[in-house]
Amino acid sequence: MKSEIIAVGSEMLTPWRQDTNSLYLTEKLNEIGVTVTFKTIVGDRKKDLVNAIRVAIGRTDILAIMGGLGPTEDDLTREAVAEALSLILRRDASMVAALHTRAAGWRVPLPPNNLKQAEVLEGALVLPNVNGSAPGQWLDTRFGGYRKIVLLIPGPPSECRPLFDAECLPRLREAIPKRFIASRTLRAAMIPESQADLFLAPIYSNFKDVETTILAHGGDIQLSLVCSKPSAALAKERVDELAGRLEEALEDWLYSSDGESLEQIVLFYLGLRQFTVAVAESCTGGMIAQRITSVPGSSRSFLGGAVVYADSLKYAFAGVSPELIAQHGAVSAEVAKALAHGIRLRTGATLGVGVTGIAGPTGGTEDKPVGLVYIAISDAEKNEATERTFRGDRTRIREFSTQQALDLIRRRLM
Amino acid sequence: MKSEIIAVGSEMLTPWRQDTNSLYLTEKLNEIGVTVTFKTIVGDRKKDLVNAIRVAIGRTDILAIMGGLGPTEDDLTREAVAEALSLILRRDASMVAALHTRAAGWRVPLPPNNLKQAEVLEGALVLPNVNGSAPGQWLDTRFGGYRKIVLLIPGPPSECRPLFDAECLPRLREAIPKRFIASRTLRAAMIPESQADLFLAPIYSNFKDVETTILAHGGDIQLSLVCSKPSAALAKERVDELAGRLEEALEDWLYSSDGESLEQIVLFYLGLRQFTVAVAESCTGGMIAQRITSVPGSSRSFLGGAVVYADSLKYAFAGVSPELIAQHGAVSAEVAKALAHGIRLRTGATLGVGVTGIAGPTGGTEDKPVGLVYIAISDAEKNEATERTFRGDRTRIREFSTQQALDLIRRRLM
Repeated sequence: MKSEIIAVGSEMLTPWRQDTNSLYLTEKLNEIGVTVTFKTIVGDRKKDLVNAIRVAIGRTDILAIMGGLGPTEDDLTREAVAEALSLILRRDASMVAALHTRAAGWRVPLPPNNLKQAEVLEGALVLPNVNGSAPGQWLDTRFGGYRKIVLLIPGPPSECRPLFDAECLPRLREAIPKRFIASRTLRAAMIPESQADLFLAPIYSNFKDVETTILAHGGDIQLSLVCSKPSAALAKERVDELAGRLEEALEDWLYSSDGESLEQIVLFYLGLRQFTVAVAESCTGGMIAQRITSVPGSSRSFLGGAVVYADSLKYAFAGVSPELIAQHGAVSAEVAKALAHGIRLRTGATLGVGVTGIAGPTGGTEDKPVGLVYIAISDAEKNEATERTFRGDRTRIREFSTQQALDLIRRRLM
Repeated sequence: MKSEIIAVGSEMLTPWRQDTNSLYLTEKLNEIGVTVTFKTIVGDRKKDLVNAIRVAIGRTDILAIMGGLGPTEDDLTREAVAEALSLILRRDASMVAALHTRAAGWRVPLPPNNLKQAEVLEGALVLPNVNGSAPGQWLDTRFGGYRKIVLLIPGPPSECRPLFDAECLPRLREAIPKRFIASRTLRAAMIPESQADLFLAPIYSNFKDVETTILAHGGDIQLSLVCSKPSAALAKERVDELAGRLEEALEDWLYSSDGESLEQIVLFYLGLRQFTVAVAESCTGGMIAQRITSVPGSSRSFLGGAVVYADSLKYAFAGVSPELIAQHGAVSAEVAKALAHGIRLRTGATLGVGVTGIAGPTGGTEDKPVGLVYIAISDAEKNEATERTFRGDRTRIREFSTQQALDLIRRRLM
């Protein structure tokens, strides 16, 4: 079964906001066997919205329209759907009463505009919105001789997602033919995308009934495998078979077979071994610690660390002497190892990690170019540094260095 | 003049990748006076792509299609445009020669698939792609009696953006009527979005010729003002007038009049005062340091700090005694102040910042719920703590705490 998403709102079309609601809806729709074939973002001009709705309704089974349900004059979704599908908009008396009651509770007069939120398309079911004032609407209708399901969903993520989960998903499950979706997500670190595709493409191309998508960012590769079948067992069998072949090919680049992040995996292994870790970061400036601590429960294994940006702090927090820095340079294997060793002793962690490099855009030289990074891991027995040079801007270099450090920790633990 | 963007590629429709190329293109198009009315994301099924192109070409002046220009069998943009616009695809001999030459240079045979990258739409100009193998195409043609400009642009951001800048923008500037765009971006911190709109909407609604967009995330509000006029001076005058009124209304919530990030502004003020800063972070886990160090040149004012996740590190790095923690709890104004004071003395910074809180989802109690945060700033004269309680999940609480800390530093410096 096919669906389309229309996201309404001018801010979607200017260079700031990203449309995350539709990612959420897409994930949920996929889970119940519905593919999302088009995603359109439209400004709030009524004419454009009517156009987009007409085009979409002609070619899809399920149309989800997000946004434009508020009380302002820019909120035109109800009106646009009415016009596009030639339906009447009727003001619902009990909803009008509810709006008046709520306004009375705040001791403010109800602005006349707000009454538009009580307008319901003929034949539609009102979907209550517990997180906001604009209710959604569910329309199961016919258009051009076919059954069409149209969802009107509030725009703000905190309203959109709960309403979709509570009101739309159960009704969609009832409304559509039973298909079972199985999916797996494999993740690998620090393998160049082009190289990966060379040996992976021949494998996944042989599984035409499994949709494989490869996404790469910041040294992380994510393979998502999705298969839709009339039986759950069959879907799972196909996905697991392909996953197995891909895992074999990815060898130890692979760090997760079920979508966990690299930091989640690192924390898992640390927990298994009952190790603790502390990091002394220079050029990554806190990014490694920030990724690790984004995982709930990280305090079990992550003690913390130091952001040793200034050289004086390399001494104050990790005991790295100014003489060592003068001798080898702040960006060197020796200083990385001294940082790893020092932070380990200072914190009492099992593993100490030291990172020093040149994030750019300035600071590079002939010998030590922008993008050069040293990452060292120290435990009671050994202390090893790894050298890498990453290309790109400051953000990219910091992201790759962080990913590389986390992957080195993972490999040390395995 | 109107434009539409079609982004091609299945990964856009599944819950991982966000489409950032189109944000970049939208920004650039806006700058030359072209509005983006639709943005469509289509999977790589040829039928859907042909459909999308037909729909778009009927209603827009400029159509930019990104992606699907590679050598694999999933890359179908050239073929889809040819079919949708009834144009012939012709293999260009000199491009074929170039592809063979490059393959010879790598000592590999040229896979036959790659030859599709030499196929050019009749009437199109080939746009060289110096960052990849698939060239773009520029088609200035007529369809349905109207002039239409169609751009075929490679998908990967590292290829898309330079090619758009070098090859498309200059040609677009020549092709379209002269309009001048002026824009300003105002940014404010820690003001609730609904409250802001109450006093801002009456102001910007009076400037119907300036497009105002308000975006809010993580305690940050960004107002973008865009005005398009036949003269640059007139556009600038209107935008500056509205900006002035909004700045007045925003008072000291406003931190930037020209789009700078909060961390950029903090570093600017630190530099002006010749102050340095160090941070001791617990629940934010490195996020504050990471934001500050994302700015090139931050080392001028940012010494670093400590991620004092475990209580033992609060002592090791910031001298916060176990007794103080036992007496008031790790999450308390007293511990936040001790962290700020301790990190200041340890690093020799002018300002020390201490943050301690409960990021969740676990760890909250009746007295100290999830989302409770204390942020303290210490200098040689005083040490003050601020208490906040933020709602939301772990990520949201960490983001708001980080933004709040940065804003408190800003206010202390002003």
